[in-house]
Amino acid sequence: MKATIYEGNKTFTVIDKEIEQPAQGEVRIKVAYSGVCGTDVHIYHGMMDKRVAMPQTIGHEMSGTIDAVGEGVEGYDVGEKVVVRPLDDRKVKASDKGFNHICEELKFIGIDSPGSMQQYWNVPSFVLHKLKAETDLKLAALIEPLSVATHDVRRSGLVKGETAVVLGGGPIGLLVAMVAKEVGAQVIISEVNPKRIAKAKELGFDAVNPIELDLVEYVKSKTENRRADVVFEVAGVQPALDIMCEVAGIRGRILMVAIHGEKKPVDLFKFFWKELSLIGARVYEKEDYEKAIELITLNELPFSQMITDVQPLTNIQQVFENIDNNPDGLKVLMDCQL
Amino acid sequence: MKATIYEGNKTFTVIDKEIEQPAQGEVRIKVAYSGVCGTDVHIYHGMMDKRVAMPQTIGHEMSGTIDAVGEGVEGYDVGEKVVVRPLDDRKVKASDKGFNHICEELKFIGIDSPGSMQQYWNVPSFVLHKLKAETDLKLAALIEPLSVATHDVRRSGLVKGETAVVLGGGPIGLLVAMVAKEVGAQVIISEVNPKRIAKAKELGFDAVNPIELDLVEYVKSKTENRRADVVFEVAGVQPALDIMCEVAGIRGRILMVAIHGEKKPVDLFKFFWKELSLIGARVYEKEDYEKAIELITLNELPFSQMITDVQPLTNIQQVFENIDNNPDGLKVLMDCQL
Ligand SMILES: NC(=O)c1ccc[n+]([C@@H]2O[C@H](COP(=O)([O-])OP(=O)(O)OC[C@H]3O[C@@H](n4cnc5c(N)ncnc54)[C@H](O)[C@@H]3O)[C@@H](O)[C@H]2O)c1
Ligand SMILES: NC(=O)c1ccc[n+]([C@@H]2O[C@H](COP(=O)([O-])OP(=O)(O)OC[C@H]3O[C@@H](n4cnc5c(N)ncnc54)[C@H](O)[C@@H]3O)[C@@H](O)[C@H]2O)c1
Ligand SMILES: [Zn+2]
Ligand SMILES: [Zn+2]
Repeated sequence: MKATIYEGNKTFTVIDKEIEQPAQGEVRIKVAYSGVCGTDVHIYHGMMDKRVAMPQTIGHEMSGTIDAVGEGVEGYDVGEKVVVRPLDDRKVKASDKGFNHICEELKFIGIDSPGSMQQYWNVPSFVLHKLKAETDLKLAALIEPLSVATHDVRRSGLVKGETAVVLGGGPIGLLVAMVAKEVGAQVIISEVNPKRIAKAKELGFDAVNPIELDLVEYVKSKTENRRADVVFEVAGVQPALDIMCEVAGIRGRILMVAIHGEKKPVDLFKFFWKELSLIGARVYEKEDYEKAIELITLNELPFSQMITDVQPLTNIQQVFENIDNNPDGLKVLMDCQL
Repeated sequence: MKATIYEGNKTFTVIDKEIEQPAQGEVRIKVAYSGVCGTDVHIYHGMMDKRVAMPQTIGHEMSGTIDAVGEGVEGYDVGEKVVVRPLDDRKVKASDKGFNHICEELKFIGIDSPGSMQQYWNVPSFVLHKLKAETDLKLAALIEPLSVATHDVRRSGLVKGETAVVLGGGPIGLLVAMVAKEVGAQVIISEVNPKRIAKAKELGFDAVNPIELDLVEYVKSKTENRRADVVFEVAGVQPALDIMCEVAGIRGRILMVAIHGEKKPVDLFKFFWKELSLIGARVYEKEDYEKAIELITLNELPFSQMITDVQPLTNIQQVFENIDNNPDGLKVLMDCQL
């Protein structure tokens, strides 16, 4: 089988290796597609070299079918379509209070252990979620990032009739926007990259550029001055932190989805004054995966337009080099079936 | 009657004036006690001169009895004990979404309009809350700041068995700690002023100095490593902002009670990583007043020890000068009955 390996120094290699038997409690998946995530790009850039045990196969946004079932695994059959929820919570402790998906010693599969950018992948069976026979495996590679979005929207408590402002129209922001719209909310996307604004409009969204118009006034005009009920911070930049407190209305809920590597100035006075809430959101829980699987299987949202390129697994080096040179693309999938 | 007037420039005067008839929809209160709030001290320091229409009577933490009832007021009788919830929400709009207590055009009585540091005070009847005949009027002057605490604890969702860390053992922090303990939580107070630490211990609290010990390790040792379920930021300083994200455990809720006048650095990564929430809390709603009235009437918490001085209204200038020179005191009441 073919497997890809991150070697450090912006380098991937493609190797041939033996297909391994699944160990006790594991299944072997024949990987169909493996999406490239922002995190994978970070790894490629060497920003996570301390955490990733190189040389290592990375990747965690995937779909596939069960190819072999190890000893002690019940309820899974060869040929079933599955996705992996790449959270290894086996070291969960009482002090994690049952929040296994963010437990202190969580290992992320595909970062802390081998990932899906290979043809066959052995994983512990507890990470599996079954798909329907009719679920499209290409779209199913979006289930992992879509679960980030279903988690964020669920944690926000967004309901029909409310207004959500999504700051940042990257892959995660667009998926959050889709899920928010599906809930029945009015959705406004704020994005600075003109190509991504155009894409968001193509997907049917109200998308504006906060450099070209006054976002707060725009949102007020769309909400009879209520401003946003929920704000999703999915841009990860200081201007988004500045505007999130302005664009949120009284008792507004701000979801912190973006990852800010260092302390940043926040207008805490506004939190007091308008009784805002800031709600951290990280990855997903089981039910977020189930919701994402349901949405992908129904396929009523413009998911297919999120996939801007599909490349054979063996092109991995070129794919990562291209992403660097083309920040306008959204989701690139590696076809692992070759 | 005697009334006090803030003239600007750290100056109060005491004047004699006619007792006024309550207008339509108003009652006249014979004020019993009027507590000095941190906000009053801010006003004295000239920090709110743009907002306060000098010369003006200030004060909003009070107790008293109804002295006269204006036209159109129903359900109130002369002689009844009352407190005022000093929020004038008459300009509430639809865009305030029903959150009248923090509506965009809220006027705070005692800051934006005349306050309680006088013998007789006319207020619109909708701000009144009735006390029981047996409620102690001295303790009742604590109902306004205690309602801040009942509001904060209610918004935190704190329940029995959880651990609350209160950052800052000033008047508000101690009242928050009392309400949190009454809920059945384990309470740890972090305070840097040795006299206030001693006071907190006198009140029966576990109070520690974060300069002398490692607060995070201390809280871990008291929670089997769970850390705090709820953190109340009632100190208003950068070290409290730094430690709040550390001392909070997984899915911890941080209540932003303190007022931060400018943007300050916050560790947003921790919000993402541990799925923390930051919850802004401002003043109180009706039910918070009712809860505070119930607690004061029961008088099972060490409220009387919060009152460190009672002075005749006419000593107002000296009282404010003393507060400046003695930051260790907690609540000073002005006796308006003379
Ligand atoms: N919470 C989680 O579990 C989780 C999971 C995945 C990704 N993330 C984080 O979510 C964020 C978004 O991920 P992504 O893959 O979509 O990233 P991305 O970089 O592709 O998208 C960010 C978008 O924000 C836009 N932007 C920049 N400045 C802006 C501004 N001032 N106003 C509005 N938009 C602006 C950029 O043009 C870009 O399109 C990242 O911080 C990522 O680390 C979090
Ligand atoms: N949200 C509201 O509606 C509301 C209402 C009233 C007051 N407040 C605010 O609440 C805050 C507290 O009010 P207060 O009257 O008790 O004020 P205060 O100044 O008397 O109390 C603050 C306490 O924090 C302590 N402190 C300073 N540095 C500290 C540190 N590093 N760690 C721990 N403690 C530290 C101080 O020694 C002091 O005792 C203020 O910011 C005030 O403006 C808010
Ligand atoms: Zn991902
Ligand atoms: Zn007050």
